[in-house]
Amino acid sequence: MTVPISQQYAIGIDIGGTNTKFGLVNHRGDISYHGSISTHRHETIEAFIEDLFQAIMPAIEESGGIGVIRGIGIGAPNGNIYKGTIEYAPNLKWKGIIPLASMIGAKFGVQARLTNDANAAAVGEMTYGAAKGMRDFIMITLGTGVGSGIVANGQLIYGHDGFAGELGHNIIIPDGRLHPGTGEHGSLEAYASATGVARTAVEFLERDPSVPSLMRAYASDEIDSRIVYECAMKGDQLAMEVYEFTGRILGLALANFVMFSSPEAIIFFGGMSKAGDLIMKPTREHMEKHLLPIFQNKVKLIFSELKEADAAILGASALVWEMRPAENSL
Amino acid sequence: MTVPISQQYAIGIDIGGTNTKFGLVNHRGDISYHGSISTHRHETIEAFIEDLFQAIMPAIEESGGIGVIRGIGIGAPNGNIYKGTIEYAPNLKWKGIIPLASMIGAKFGVQARLTNDANAAAVGEMTYGAAKGMRDFIMITLGTGVGSGIVANGQLIYGHDGFAGELGHNIIIPDGRLHPGTGEHGSLEAYASATGVARTAVEFLERDPSVPSLMRAYASDEIDSRIVYECAMKGDQLAMEVYEFTGRILGLALANFVMFSSPEAIIFFGGMSKAGDLIMKPTREHMEKHLLPIFQNKVKLIFSELKEADAAILGASALVWEMRPAENSL
Repeated sequence: MTVPISQQYAIGIDIGGTNTKFGLVNHRGDISYHGSISTHRHETIEAFIEDLFQAIMPAIEESGGIGVIRGIGIGAPNGNIYKGTIEYAPNLKWKGIIPLASMIGAKFGVQARLTNDANAAAVGEMTYGAAKGMRDFIMITLGTGVGSGIVANGQLIYGHDGFAGELGHNIIIPDGRLHPGTGEHGSLEAYASATGVARTAVEFLERDPSVPSLMRAYASDEIDSRIVYECAMKGDQLAMEVYEFTGRILGLALANFVMFSSPEAIIFFGGMSKAGDLIMKPTREHMEKHLLPIFQNKVKLIFSELKEADAAILGASALVWEMRPAENSL
Repeated sequence: MTVPISQQYAIGIDIGGTNTKFGLVNHRGDISYHGSISTHRHETIEAFIEDLFQAIMPAIEESGGIGVIRGIGIGAPNGNIYKGTIEYAPNLKWKGIIPLASMIGAKFGVQARLTNDANAAAVGEMTYGAAKGMRDFIMITLGTGVGSGIVANGQLIYGHDGFAGELGHNIIIPDGRLHPGTGEHGSLEAYASATGVARTAVEFLERDPSVPSLMRAYASDEIDSRIVYECAMKGDQLAMEVYEFTGRILGLALANFVMFSSPEAIIFFGGMSKAGDLIMKPTREHMEKHLLPIFQNKVKLIFSELKEADAAILGASALVWEMRPAENSL
C-alpha cells in the first residue's frame, strides 16, 4: 500500500448479540463514520456479511475507496485471534465455528483480524485510552457479563489457544451461587455482573422481608442493576449493602488477579462501572486486604477513558494498526 | 566479548535459606562444575559475597578465566528482576532491600541478573526442560511453599513491578485456613504446600479419632508430607483422602489460572510433586470440572524434566543466555 499512514483508515466492527456497530477510524483514533446493522436478524452468516458489506461500502467509497483501508478489525463474543474464528458463541445465532475474519477479509478484499470483545476493548484502551503507555494492565468489563482483557509486557495475553482472559469465570466462592449460563458455582460473573447485582438485591430483599428498602417498590423480576443503583444513590441502606457485598467479592477476585500478573492498573469498562464509588470503594478495600504487602497500595483502579459508544469500535479498529502479516487475515 | 558462544559459560547461583548452590553452565545446559556454600552462616551480605567469590573463582580460572564467563544468573527468594534486588525476604538474614545483582556483578566484573527462584525455574524449564518450545505455560513449585513462574507469549510475566506470579497466595477458599506466614485465610499455599498437606493430615486425624490410619503411629508434630505420602502408598485410606482434599483445592486453583492465561501446560516441580498420581489425579479431575468447555481436555499437567538438584542452577544460569544489555546488571 502506497497511501501514507496518515491517510489510511481502519474499519472497526463490534459484533454484539443484538446489533453490530462499525466505524472508519484513522490512526489517531478519530471515528469519521458511524453505522450499525442488526446482528440477530440474519439467519445465516453469509446474509449478515452481505448486509454489513452493503452498509460499510458507501463510507469506504466516500473516504477514498478500498485503497485507503488498511484493514478490518473485529471484536466478537468468543472470538479467537489465532484462528480468526467465532467459536460456539452463546449469544449469536450462527452456531459452531465460523471463520469470520477470512470471510470478511475475502468479501472486502483487505486483511481482517478478529478477537473477543473484551480483548478488543483492552487494545483500544492501550492505543487510545486510559492505558496509553502502560505495559501491564487488566481491563475488566462489568456489563451484563464480566469480561476481561489482559496485557502483560505490552502484549495481549491470548494463551496457547487464543482463549486466555476469561476472568469472569474464575471461581471466587467455591460452591457459591449458580451461574445459569455455565453451570459453574461461585464464579465472579455470577456476582459482579449487572445480572449478579440484581440477583443479590433480590436475595437481600427476600432474606428479611422486615428490612425496609426503596427497592421494595419493584417486583422481583423488575429489579435490575439500574434500580439498585438509583436506590443506593437515594441513600437506601439495603441497596448500598448490595454494592458492599459485590465489592467484597470483586475485590477478592482482583487481589488474585494482581498476584497473578501484577498490573500497573485495572481499568473498568461497561455499565456497572458507572456506579463509581458505590462499587469501587468496597472493591478497593477488599482487594487491598487480600494482597500480600509487596502489592499493596500500588495498583490503580481506574475507569475507561473511551466514550462507551465508541470504545468497542475503537478497540476493534486498533487491532488493524498492530496487524502483522502472519496474523489472522484472508 | 570475542569468545564464541560455544565456549562461553554462565554462572548459575541458587540462593536458598540454608545453602547457596552454584554451577558453571554451558549454552546447552551442561553443568561443568558444582559447588555450594552456606547462606545462613553469613551475617552480612558482604561476607556472603566474599565467600561466594572465593568458592567460585577457582572454577572460573579452571574453565578459562573470567573472559569466558558470559554473565551470572541468580535465583533468590523475593528477587526482583527489574531492580536486581532481594526485597524483604523472610527466609534470609539480610533484611530490607539488597541490590544483590549489582553487588555480585561488581565483585566478579561481569553482568549479573537476578529473579525469584520460581521464575528462575520457569526459565530453566523453558530453556532446557519440559517447556522447551512452549510459549505459554505455568510452572508451579510444590515444596515447603507454593511458588510459580508464568510464561505467556514466550516471555516471563514480571508485572509492572517485577513481583508477578505469586500464585501460592491466591485466595482459593475465602475465610479458609490461616496461613501463619502471611496472615491471609484460604490461600493456595495454606493447603497445597508440604506444610499444608501435613496440616490437613493432622486435621483429618483429629476430626474423628475413631477412624483408623497408619498415620496414627506418629505424633501430630512429627507428621510431615513424607509420612502422609508413605502411608498413602501403603494404601492408608485417610492419607489418600488428604491427597484427594489437596487435589480438590489445587485443581480449583489451576482452573482459575488456566482461565487467566490459557497455558499449553502446567509444569510441576518440587518435593510434593513426587506424590505423582496421588495428587495429580484429583487435581486434574477438579481442574477440568471447573473449566469452561472451551478450556477442557487441553491443558497438560506435567512434571519438570530437570534433575531437582540441578534445576535451580540451570534456571538461574538460563537468565544469562537471554540477558539483554538494558536489564539488571552492574
